Amino acid sequence: MATTHVLQTVNGVAVDDLLTTVNAIKATPAIAKFKFRIHNQWEGAAQNNSTVDTFYGAGQERSRTKPFVLEADEPAVLLGKDTAANRVEHLLHALAACLTTSMVDHAAARGIHIEEVESFLEGDIDLHGFLALDRNVRNGYQGIRTNFKIKADVPDEQLQEIGQLGPGRSPVFDSLTNGVPVSVTAERL
Amino acid sequence: MATTHVLQTVNGVAVDDLLTTVNAIKATPAIAKFKFRIHNQWEGAAQNNSTVDTFYGAGQERSRTKPFVLEADEPAVLLGKDTAANRVEHLLHALAACLTTSMVDHAAARGIHIEEVESFLEGDIDLHGFLALDRNVRNGYQGIRTNFKIKADVPDEQLQEIGQLGPGRSPVFDSLTNGVPVSVTAERL
Repeated sequence: MATTHVLQTVNGVAVDDLLTTVNAIKATPAIAKFKFRIHNQWEGAAQNNSTVDTFYGAGQERSRTKPFVLEADEPAVLLGKDTAANRVEHLLHALAACLTTSMVDHAAARGIHIEEVESFLEGDIDLHGFLALDRNVRNGYQGIRTNFKIKADVPDEQLQEIGQLGPGRSPVFDSLTNGVPVSVTAERL
Repeated sequence: MATTHVLQTVNGVAVDDLLTTVNAIKATPAIAKFKFRIHNQWEGAAQNNSTVDTFYGAGQERSRTKPFVLEADEPAVLLGKDTAANRVEHLLHALAACLTTSMVDHAAARGIHIEEVESFLEGDIDLHGFLALDRNVRNGYQGIRTNFKIKADVPDEQLQEIGQLGPGRSPVFDSLTNGVPVSVTAERL
């Protein structure tokens, strides 16, 4: 007698594929190692763009279906032409995207259906740092506040648990809150 | 007798405007405080987008000339539809954009002309962290390597100094290497 297997999708995430990935990594730990890359090109003043294309993962070199180009600029008050989001807004986007994807993936793995998610992020920067006007003021964000709004048919307590899945597992949240070693070298073009 | 003032632009940066900003902050320190924001919306699975529009800075609420929408997705091997750069690639873009803009701004303030800049970034992530398979493996980047290529008519020693202007002043480099306090709250939509 034939058996049928129903593909289980929760929050748009193919849970079977997720479990297949987990089992593949348990069998061959080396395939868990990924390398992500970008190539950035300066366009003048505050304008520059990054191209995302290749990465290494699951044991081999890979390419995206097409290269993605990400733009950056600054608003006029920060000496830019206001043609694109700026660098510290891109950082907030990376954080929001990662908290959200981490939340829905790990909720899916637990069988928790989420209907809607949105988030509002705000961070504080004091230009005394960047402009080297006060050595007691840091260059970067002094703090970032993230507020999630989640629609899911769950009790209040579980809604709070869902809200903490992102911080618990997000690669960008970990990178940003705990810090990452970054090497910077320069050579002549 | 009338005097003429020639607007000084270095690396596309209006140096006079930069000095005007510095002097305005020295006179009124509170105008150095900025708040950057995004609003992120989940689209299903690994797809979500952030809208960049308003920010607070130089003493008042401000809007961009138009809202900018930033997309995020994952490649198929990471359970996405491969429609956009992913969250950790966006983080690399934020870092590259910030190191580059910080470099050209601070070089401009020193009167150093830069002709071309490009950079290559690569970071390592081991999915044992994100997938909760090994508590000794972090969720985030284990390390990021940044290599700048700079074209400028300067001696080798000064080329290296230019290469360190980014790490010395970049808000994203500081945020990412030293860490930022991030609060995350959740409420029902």
